[in-house]
Parts: sequence; C-alpha cells; structure tokens
Amino acid sequence: MGAILAIDIGGTQMRVALYPPQDIQPVRHQRTATRSGSGTVFDRLTALIDSVWDDGVEVISVASAGPLDPESGIILSSPNIPGWINFPLGERLAGRYRVPIHIGNDANLAALGEWKYGAGRGHNDLLYITISTGIGGGVISNGCLLLGHHGLAAELGHITVLPDGPLCPCGQRGHLEAVASGPAISAYVLERLAGGATSSLSAHPGLDAQQVAEAARAGDRLAVEAYARAGEALGRALADFLHIFNPSIVIFGGGVSRSGGLFFDPLKTSLAKHVMEPGYTRELVLTTAQLGDEAGLLGALAHAHLKRGANQA
Amino acid sequence: MGAILAIDIGGTQMRVALYPPQDIQPVRHQRTATRSGSGTVFDRLTALIDSVWDDGVEVISVASAGPLDPESGIILSSPNIPGWINFPLGERLAGRYRVPIHIGNDANLAALGEWKYGAGRGHNDLLYITISTGIGGGVISNGCLLLGHHGLAAELGHITVLPDGPLCPCGQRGHLEAVASGPAISAYVLERLAGGATSSLSAHPGLDAQQVAEAARAGDRLAVEAYARAGEALGRALADFLHIFNPSIVIFGGGVSRSGGLFFDPLKTSLAKHVMEPGYTRELVLTTAQLGDEAGLLGALAHAHLKRGANQA
Repeated sequence: MGAILAIDIGGTQMRVALYPPQDIQPVRHQRTATRSGSGTVFDRLTALIDSVWDDGVEVISVASAGPLDPESGIILSSPNIPGWINFPLGERLAGRYRVPIHIGNDANLAALGEWKYGAGRGHNDLLYITISTGIGGGVISNGCLLLGHHGLAAELGHITVLPDGPLCPCGQRGHLEAVASGPAISAYVLERLAGGATSSLSAHPGLDAQQVAEAARAGDRLAVEAYARAGEALGRALADFLHIFNPSIVIFGGGVSRSGGLFFDPLKTSLAKHVMEPGYTRELVLTTAQLGDEAGLLGALAHAHLKRGANQA
Repeated sequence: MGAILAIDIGGTQMRVALYPPQDIQPVRHQRTATRSGSGTVFDRLTALIDSVWDDGVEVISVASAGPLDPESGIILSSPNIPGWINFPLGERLAGRYRVPIHIGNDANLAALGEWKYGAGRGHNDLLYITISTGIGGGVISNGCLLLGHHGLAAELGHITVLPDGPLCPCGQRGHLEAVASGPAISAYVLERLAGGATSSLSAHPGLDAQQVAEAARAGDRLAVEAYARAGEALGRALADFLHIFNPSIVIFGGGVSRSGGLFFDPLKTSLAKHVMEPGYTRELVLTTAQLGDEAGLLGALAHAHLKRGANQA
C-alpha cells in the first residue's frame, strides 16, 4: 500500500495530512479556514490537498461533519457549510485525484481513531461521545464500526432525554444535544438569568460553556447547577446506552468533557442511579479521549487501513 | 455437522426440538411447564431433553430469558424462575451431555431467527422488538448479532422514555417497558379508573392488555387512549433507535404487537413526528414477526449454525 492522504473537514477548519504506508506520524500537514478565503469550500479543500500531494498517495480518506452517506460519498447536509446539501464530495474528489475515496462521519471516525491509536486500544465494544457545540457519537461493537443501513447510525446526541424539552438544532425537542451540549449549558444559564436567578454571570449573547465552567469553579451556584443538570441528563442517557450496547469502555471527547469533575461527578452519580444491573458497570472504563485535535485525521487514517483489510479479506 | 438440539426456556413453558443437520423442520419436538411438575426446573429440563435425545446430536443451543452471560453460559437472574440466580446452565448441561452448549438471550435469538428464517431475510441491519409481558430486543448490525462485552446488550425495553415515570420491573422508572408493555397498558387503565375515569372496563386485578384491546375495538375511549399512549411512547423510542442503529427493517413480535392499528397507528404517527431526518425512514420496513411461538427454537437453531460458521472461518 502507498501513502494515505487523510482529511478532516470541520465547521471551523479543514486539515489534511499525508501519512507514509505504515506510520501514524504525518510527513506533511496543512490546515485552512473552512468558510473564509477565496473560492468555494471545495476549491480551498483541493488547494489544501494539492499543497501536500504526493504521487505515492494510494487512497484519500475523509472525516467530515455529517449527516453523510459513506457508501455514496454524499454529504447530505453540513450544519456549518451552507452550500453542502447533497454534495457529492466522494465523486468530486475521485474525479480530480483518480484514487479511491473513503468518507466517514467525523464522530464515527474519531471513535475509530481512539480505538486504534488512543484511549480505546484493546477494547472490542466501545462508545465514543463527543460533547462540544453538538453531541456526536461513534460505536465499535464486537470490533466493527456501527454504521447502519445508510451510514446514519450512532447519532448518540439525538436521543430524547427530556420529552418536550428544549429545542435541538436538529429540529426535535429534548434531545441529549439540546440539554447537555456546550450551547445547551449556556442557554440554560441565560434562561435562568432571564427568570431572575442571581449569579456572578451576567446575561450576554456571547456567554459560552467555558465561561460558565470558570464561574462554577469560582463557586457560582447557578453555574454549578447548569453543569450538574447537563451531567445528570448525560448519566441517564449513558445508562440507556449501556443497556443498548453493553460496552467495556466509554470515551468522552470534545470541549465540555474537559471540564472535569464539574461535569463528570454528576454524570457518574446519575449513571450509578440509572443503570439497571451491576453487570453493566462492572469492569466498565469511563475515560477521556487521548487524540485531541488529531482525532479526525487519525480516524480517517484508521478507516483507510480498515478498508484495506476488508478488501484483502 | 450432526443434529442440533434447540431449547427455548420461557417463564411459562420449556420447549425442545431436534433438528436434522440441514433442516428447519424438527424431527422431534416436546414441551413442558417451566414451574410446575416434579423435581427442579433443571430436572424437568433434562427429562425433556432426554425425551428427544439422539446420539447424533452435535450441539445444544439454548434460548433463555435473561439477563445471562452467553460467554460463560451463566443465567444471571431469571424473572420467572426464582431459583436461577447466577445459575451455571451451560456448565450443567455440558457436564451431562458432553457436547458444546451455546446459550443466548431469547429476544436476541428471536431476532436471529427472524433474520435467518422469518421477516428479516435479506436485511443486514435489523431491529427486533418484542412487546408482551416485558419488552425485549435483538439487534443485527452489519450482519452481526449485537451482544456487547458481557452479552447484555440490546435491552431495548430498558431505555427511559418518561423520566420519573412508572416503575419498571427492573427497578428503574419510566423505561419503555414500564410504559408500553402489556401490563403497563392495563396498569394505566386501572390507574385512570381509580382516578374516576369512565369506561366500559371495570377495575379488577386480572385486567390485561387483551381485554383493553377488545374494549378499544368496541369504541371505549379510555381503552383507545391507553393503546395510543403506549404507541406514542414506542414511536418516540423507535425514533431514538433509528438514530442509534439506522436499521433497514424493524420487526415487532409479542402479543401486544398483534393488536394491529390500535397500537401501530399511534406508533407510526409518533415515529414520523420524532425522527430527525427523512433518511432514517426512507426504505425502512416496519413489520410483524413471522415465526410466532417458534421464534425461540428457530433462533437457537440459527445461533448454532452461526457459531459453526464462525468456528470454521
């Protein structure tokens, strides 16, 4: 096998890295802003690819925000790239670069990356939950990435935790993402402030979960409560996920997961309360992601290796 | 491969069937009551096995109510067999019959049976949901049975649909099983009757979901409402399951699923309302189980064939 060109397309940045056949250290690595600069997003993406291209590249592997169809390589919609609706990314890249293109949902591939190179090594049944602007998921079950019929599976942020609860960016109500994501935490604080709650935080539209975390660490009761509410909901959802998947490890990624005990203490209390059988938490590892910003690229790399294995089998 | 002896251990009946190597029609077939008769449950089970035994039997494959550990063959607990707590069923059977023993959760194996021999043939991503006294589940994902780390996965009845809702037999509150199972439907009617609701049904402890279904068909408003409430909750849970698994088919088994439009009409309305992306329901087949009472035995048979395939691979 030749070199692997991995791409991570996020709402803020696009990154590419060129990996030698048997290495996880890239020989070249570039990034650019997704939505600013000249030309279309696709133009900037190809310029980025060209800047690291090598004729030894045998496959291009892409991690992208979804929903997307990994079979056809079509991005169905992209919350942060307005023009990409039913965008045939796979076909466009294949037409230009004449190598096989693999495309996967970024949270799914981050799960794959953590499984192969990060916190999940050695496990066969793994959940990855990323909590930041949204809540995404990836599931390894019996050593296989869970994709579903059209590659739309593992949307762990889109299960209902609070019927008729807050509006989710997807249009439904009360989803985990609408209760426990970063914006959901700050929205709860703003709502309570509007209702007259007292806090060291003041109501302004730019309030984010990071600022709420700082206030909580300084002892602000409303801020502590906002994280506790998110952690409680996530613990309840996690009990559901354990009953559904019975994993041996759950890995948390994303900015909110870096807020430590503020979030994890109520989460663990809630999980212990809501799990129905001690067998589900016996031997269960709860941990944080190890790959950080590299998760998308390394997930795309792992995906390329996995596809190669499947084609050789 | 020799003959396969399949066993289905339910709360009411135990059944055994002897299948020739390449057939799904048993050459012998016996059943007995699980909890009445002489000796222990295990004594009655072995007497039942002995009654159909043939020296050509190469493997015994068991479907049993769980939770159980398919790796070790231990029944962790059995809601309807009081003595079976951490009961080493696999070891006990292996010691007596000297053939390999496979053990699986009955709902998981029913999913396998419907996939191989019933309504799910040809699909790779399948959900099976059985709704009767409890709510059980089985999942085929990318052509593999979902088991999880200790075989405790796919407990689809034990996800929260109504936080702080009715008590579930598992001890938690507001699980799907506590809102949409047969007993949950009749319990809701009893609760409303106790609250003064008018109905053609009268409050008596033996009221069951079947009687509620008959009253609903005769136009009783409370009875219709009880089914609609269960169907609405199941539709919401099903939207969550679609987001999680993105199956191409969902198969409903169990007595409540035979109540037709009474249950399925509100379920479908609720599902359409709660699914976040049309891709999840496009091409999705919703159907009822085809194997009926044979699901457990045929599931155990399919499991034996699957294990044989895995050992040969």
